[in-house]
Amino acid sequence: MSKPVFLGLIAAMLGLGLLAVACGGDGNGGNGGGDGVLNDIAAQRGLTPEDMKHALQQFVPPGKYDDYVMFSSGGHSGQLLVVGMPSMRILKQIAVFTPEPWQGYGYGADWGDKVLKEGNREGTDLTWGDTHHPAISETAGEYDGRWIYIQDRANGRMAMIDLADLRVKQIVAVPNIQTSHGGMFVTPNSEYVHVSSKFPMPWPPGTYADVSEYKEKFRGASTWLKIDQATGRINLKESFQVEIPPYTQDLADAGKKVSEGFGFIGSFNTEMATGGVDAEGKPEPLEAGASKNNFDFLHVVNWKKGEEVVKAGKAEEMNGIKVIRLDTAIKEGVLHLIPEPKSPHGADVDPSGRYIVVGGKLDPNVTIFDFNKVKQAIDSKDYEGKDVFGVPILKFDSVVAAQVEVGAGPLHTQFDSQGHGYTSMFLASAIAKFTLGEDVVKTGEEPFKRIETIPVHYNIGHLATAEGDTVSPDDNYMVALNKWSIDRFAPLGPLHPQNFQLIDLKGGNGPMELLADMPIGMGEPHYTQIMKADKLKALEVYLPGTDALTMERSEFAIEAGQEKVERDGNHVEAWMTAQRSHFTPDILRVKQGEHVMLHITNIEQTRDATHGFAIADYNIQASLEPGETATFEFTADKPGAYNFYCTEFCSALHLEMAGWLLVEPSAAAAANP
Amino acid sequence: MSKPVFLGLIAAMLGLGLLAVACGGDGNGGNGGGDGVLNDIAAQRGLTPEDMKHALQQFVPPGKYDDYVMFSSGGHSGQLLVVGMPSMRILKQIAVFTPEPWQGYGYGADWGDKVLKEGNREGTDLTWGDTHHPAISETAGEYDGRWIYIQDRANGRMAMIDLADLRVKQIVAVPNIQTSHGGMFVTPNSEYVHVSSKFPMPWPPGTYADVSEYKEKFRGASTWLKIDQATGRINLKESFQVEIPPYTQDLADAGKKVSEGFGFIGSFNTEMATGGVDAEGKPEPLEAGASKNNFDFLHVVNWKKGEEVVKAGKAEEMNGIKVIRLDTAIKEGVLHLIPEPKSPHGADVDPSGRYIVVGGKLDPNVTIFDFNKVKQAIDSKDYEGKDVFGVPILKFDSVVAAQVEVGAGPLHTQFDSQGHGYTSMFLASAIAKFTLGEDVVKTGEEPFKRIETIPVHYNIGHLATAEGDTVSPDDNYMVALNKWSIDRFAPLGPLHPQNFQLIDLKGGNGPMELLADMPIGMGEPHYTQIMKADKLKALEVYLPGTDALTMERSEFAIEAGQEKVERDGNHVEAWMTAQRSHFTPDILRVKQGEHVMLHITNIEQTRDATHGFAIADYNIQASLEPGETATFEFTADKPGAYNFYCTEFCSALHLEMAGWLLVEPSAAAAANP
Repeated sequence: MSKPVFLGLIAAMLGLGLLAVACGGDGNGGNGGGDGVLNDIAAQRGLTPEDMKHALQQFVPPGKYDDYVMFSSGGHSGQLLVVGMPSMRILKQIAVFTPEPWQGYGYGADWGDKVLKEGNREGTDLTWGDTHHPAISETAGEYDGRWIYIQDRANGRMAMIDLADLRVKQIVAVPNIQTSHGGMFVTPNSEYVHVSSKFPMPWPPGTYADVSEYKEKFRGASTWLKIDQATGRINLKESFQVEIPPYTQDLADAGKKVSEGFGFIGSFNTEMATGGVDAEGKPEPLEAGASKNNFDFLHVVNWKKGEEVVKAGKAEEMNGIKVIRLDTAIKEGVLHLIPEPKSPHGADVDPSGRYIVVGGKLDPNVTIFDFNKVKQAIDSKDYEGKDVFGVPILKFDSVVAAQVEVGAGPLHTQFDSQGHGYTSMFLASAIAKFTLGEDVVKTGEEPFKRIETIPVHYNIGHLATAEGDTVSPDDNYMVALNKWSIDRFAPLGPLHPQNFQLIDLKGGNGPMELLADMPIGMGEPHYTQIMKADKLKALEVYLPGTDALTMERSEFAIEAGQEKVERDGNHVEAWMTAQRSHFTPDILRVKQGEHVMLHITNIEQTRDATHGFAIADYNIQASLEPGETATFEFTADKPGAYNFYCTEFCSALHLEMAGWLLVEPSAAAAANP
Repeated sequence: MSKPVFLGLIAAMLGLGLLAVACGGDGNGGNGGGDGVLNDIAAQRGLTPEDMKHALQQFVPPGKYDDYVMFSSGGHSGQLLVVGMPSMRILKQIAVFTPEPWQGYGYGADWGDKVLKEGNREGTDLTWGDTHHPAISETAGEYDGRWIYIQDRANGRMAMIDLADLRVKQIVAVPNIQTSHGGMFVTPNSEYVHVSSKFPMPWPPGTYADVSEYKEKFRGASTWLKIDQATGRINLKESFQVEIPPYTQDLADAGKKVSEGFGFIGSFNTEMATGGVDAEGKPEPLEAGASKNNFDFLHVVNWKKGEEVVKAGKAEEMNGIKVIRLDTAIKEGVLHLIPEPKSPHGADVDPSGRYIVVGGKLDPNVTIFDFNKVKQAIDSKDYEGKDVFGVPILKFDSVVAAQVEVGAGPLHTQFDSQGHGYTSMFLASAIAKFTLGEDVVKTGEEPFKRIETIPVHYNIGHLATAEGDTVSPDDNYMVALNKWSIDRFAPLGPLHPQNFQLIDLKGGNGPMELLADMPIGMGEPHYTQIMKADKLKALEVYLPGTDALTMERSEFAIEAGQEKVERDGNHVEAWMTAQRSHFTPDILRVKQGEHVMLHITNIEQTRDATHGFAIADYNIQASLEPGETATFEFTADKPGAYNFYCTEFCSALHLEMAGWLLVEPSAAAAANP
């Protein structure tokens, strides 16, 4: 810039009163720094002009709110993270599949113990999960902020979190699948939430089969879980499954608008490799065996047709859920396949519902299918043949819209509202931006063309745009979920955090710009959805005496003054209250071996006036929110004087909020100490 | 500012080439925004000039490191958080007392299962803790970055985390205490780490007593745990305890410099109230009973004297640790008391070691004791009398240096190197800054005087300055650990996050300035220590075949090509390797009911090349870092074909990194399915 122009600009800025702001002086001496303070800070901290810009783009001042909340799976932490955007501050970790004592989840309070128990499988207490795909409930294809669903990739389960209180309310051990991936996604009006099997299992479930009988005896399932519109809970009786071939089904997405009524599931391992490295006479590991074919199959499931098939009584009941067997699914046109190259992973539907973008990890292109062509091919039975299980395969050339070369290792694609796709590339550690078809491109750019690429650091898996899975994405922010973070943060030992990178999309019209890194050192988030923050309308306190599981008044709720202890033979039952700064009663006397039930009501209605309840050495810990009633049930098997106390810093006399569980030794114990 | 001066400044800035920076233009058009871009962003995002400044003070650009790492207790999450400062990004959550599957802690791998088992008490599996006070190891009174210790306030335990790999290596069930607070702190050369009881328990431990015999039969203990200088582990045989009265001992700090060799423990409830609200004929809850006295007692423990007493054979062995009984402690001059007002909480030693600052929750002053006077009073037996247990009480007036009125609810105090104390005030939701004695005040300010107060949001507990517990605090940053966060963040349900607020100390010379809010929604951090980031020298990978517990080569480590499966009767043992992108072997055949041991070595030496190992429905999940060998031991009690897989996204073919555990049904099971 020439000096005269620069000076002219300064004059203009003076006129607008802007320079004082730009230079950090407010003209009133109120910032304690005077003019040039921004420069001084930048110089002192080694910030470049770019850094200064990015700082201002990310910073959310004290007491101000973020524009978005991001719901991010925690991966094998088993939990769900709520992250503010653009600040990228972690607002909350919601316990889902893993017991978590801060939230009092799984440490003796009935709410969490019941939810976790419900999620056990095959007689095993499952105390972790591998959360993969969060799915916010939708209305008319828009996130509606009511509930969020997430599946357990390790154990074939899924969970429902109520966004009224950000607590998990239900874990469903999904019948007939052992592991899960397949979305999860909700249908555009939250009729169903979908989850399908990852690796198949011996069918019919409950039978045993060796992997040598993989093709014959192993099967997967595409599961459509019916959502109760009042509570958000899954109603298994109204749900159904579609039996699918023993490939490895993978990412999935819901059709929307023109493709509403359909779901799309990527797959790999149509080779049906089962491993056997250095053994089994097949000296190749599973990953080599599973990567031979040039094409695997995108599964196209017509769920509205599936509903009809179930209604017509053509489904079998298997372990508590209606199953459309594979032969029925083929016969009734519920399931079709589309060839997808190579070692495919992502399958994502654009906001218009017309384009389905597939990324093949070992193919430098994204492949874009046109749903209009898919529909036509299905209707006209334009098949190239059938797979070994008899499922019709649509002709690739009949349904493809385009292939766009993006780079090495394309995985997942997100969208803006301007007709662009953004594809993550694991091998290239980059994101490519490209155009979709001319019917949706609003920028005048050439359709089906790569526009630009931005590097990320490093090894990106998923990515997400704000409101990205809705019919109307916002076009401002994108987050890259990077798996590796070598040298990005202080040395934290051999186990590195992940790295969320915040990227500015500039309304879809400018070059992508990296704003900030955010370490995630408490799990490996797999996928995330980003919702406008004002759609989150959580409760501030519970109504007095609320059972957090049912959200209704607990039968054990009491008011102040109603506290009591009752005994019946070997059973001691106490109705207690908690309020700043005491429990009532605060001395509980029982005898060793007695069965104890404590019903504690936090009788506060003040926001944030949470009380904890812990008993030393009894492994009991709960978080009792204002208005909440919880029940603890245990056997007082250990004699002693056990201190109980409020674990949540509630008041100036919080440390004094304590009491005693006195477990008198039984005569036998006293005689033989 | 007048216009001429302002224009003069502009001219000066032009000369220095600064304005282009201040206004965000780099003069090369490289930022894509042009001049005024900072203003534009600020205007668009509603940032004030102050906000702009704070954004620049906090922002750490992508790929750049934070200056400090903050080790923050997770409170009743049971974990330890590592937070970067000034960015306030959570770098890692280290699992300590609570099983955590991302780190594979407590889900079948031998490292974590052994550590957790070691920490069980009284036959109960304890799967959570209430972490309170992290204590970084010190050399010559400076954090040295070797190890960090933290205690479990709920269950009378403590843990050692090795900062070489940021993993917990030892949990000690501390004998003779049931709950803990009392620091914890290390002595200035990490000879000991101290923890004392919170509420007392019946003594001798193992006997039963009712709270009606509280004064006679309940006792606490001040515990001096000996640190092995090679491994950082606690050696209980070389440790000792001092029996203390059944008050409720609370915050504690180590003497340093002039007071080295001493420890100071605050207490409350010298009333020895045990509660009994609406019962027991004492219609007052514990917190009212415990808040009657105008003074409680600061405990002064001479640990060097204690060492000598133990060496002289005057301690009793009780449950595996040497105990200096209360009468011996009195007789030998190991324990003295100082009256401290009112409902005291914090007890903090300044960097010079001379001043001990006490905050009384119900007293608007901080009380500052002078160690020189304390020493003199002890030496001259200048007592005002003895407590009911015969412990000598020093005269308040003889040992006090000053009282400074700070405001409502003072709790904890931190220091800078300029002679200032900073005290958190829970009731006032504020931090007061005041001067200590003239011997340490370097600013020319009047000694023992309140300088200023800054509001925080809300209900602050602890606070921490950078390098704050060392003999030489840095004077730049302070963090307020606020317990309540009403309206500070998006609505997150009845359970609110905590709020860490970052405050600029300006070298101790300027007014305190609030920079940023940071929600903590995964626990309730109690206290934190902040260390220069470059003191953290963690490993990047393990040496090949390392056992993470011992840090030595595992007897089960193998190299590629050495994989094998051995059977011996009912026992199946496999030596496996993991590397991108397969396990070898990847098919494991066992029979139902067989005992299985899997030794898996991650044979990679590439940084961040972690592999997970999970088995569906068997509740097994581990994180195998590069170079690590881990062992899994379980009974294959459930028949079926169980998929196992790598849970950490390791490579483009990560999804294919899987295999099968085939558990053939036993004949009996097959006959009666």
